[in-house]
Amino acid sequence: MEELWVKSAVASWKQIVERLDRRLLPLTDEELQKQVAPGKNRLVYLLGHLIAVHDRMFPQLGIGERSHAELDDAYLTNPDRTLPDPLPVADLKKAWSEVNGALTAAFEKLTPAEWLQKHSAVSDEDFVKDPSRNRLALLLSRTNHASFHAGQVVLAK
Amino acid sequence: MEELWVKSAVASWKQIVERLDRRLLPLTDEELQKQVAPGKNRLVYLLGHLIAVHDRMFPQLGIGERSHAELDDAYLTNPDRTLPDPLPVADLKKAWSEVNGALTAAFEKLTPAEWLQKHSAVSDEDFVKDPSRNRLALLLSRTNHASFHAGQVVLAK
Repeated sequence: MEELWVKSAVASWKQIVERLDRRLLPLTDEELQKQVAPGKNRLVYLLGHLIAVHDRMFPQLGIGERSHAELDDAYLTNPDRTLPDPLPVADLKKAWSEVNGALTAAFEKLTPAEWLQKHSAVSDEDFVKDPSRNRLALLLSRTNHASFHAGQVVLAK
Repeated sequence: MEELWVKSAVASWKQIVERLDRRLLPLTDEELQKQVAPGKNRLVYLLGHLIAVHDRMFPQLGIGERSHAELDDAYLTNPDRTLPDPLPVADLKKAWSEVNGALTAAFEKLTPAEWLQKHSAVSDEDFVKDPSRNRLALLLSRTNHASFHAGQVVLAK
């Protein structure tokens, strides 16, 4: 029965990632320069931001090393248009697909018991106090984060 | 152990609802008339839309009757600014808090086994074929939906 919990949580993640795939991957370099609203983030910033956040899930979940730390300065620690875009759009799209593909493959291998183990951002002591700070909670949180930005992406025109 | 799956999914739902509470409830009638981006939905439309969608979760999850069908025409089946707002803002805010409060209370009473039962939008035959179409999947989907619109709400200025 616990397999169904895993399946539902991973399906929810995949649904949001696929929605973003359909929205962002077909866009041209020029279209990705559009802002979601006047003065707000460009689509390319949100794409880079989501890659950086997802890439960090590997160490956070203890399922691998991250591979795109070069995106943090431009898309995570600084607001949009502070620094030049560090990668051409084609490379950014490739990184998006690779990071999400590798994450999803790793998710599908974790057992229900492994999903309830603590994630690396929680200390052993804190996890004993609050066992809900587990891998699953991190997955749900990142799925909501991606959905939050998906709601912004659809506004660009 | 399954209790932790329930707890994580409900915690994720509560987190998004509380984020929307903090954003929307303090706003004045006038502030709620703002659009999330030029020509896009007003905040009051998104508030009404989220109430209508959440209100429908009672029958969808088989945990009660809905109580705000009067919002569907203005906020669910028609785009923004098609029909007049059917309720004063104060009543809308009250409905938002009541609907979410009653849902969360009902969620906290469902057992892990009950979360894996089918939701009412799925036929018995389809559920046998795909048991992932359960109450939990609907909760995750509605949480993502709320997060999607939360991403838009923060853009209004």
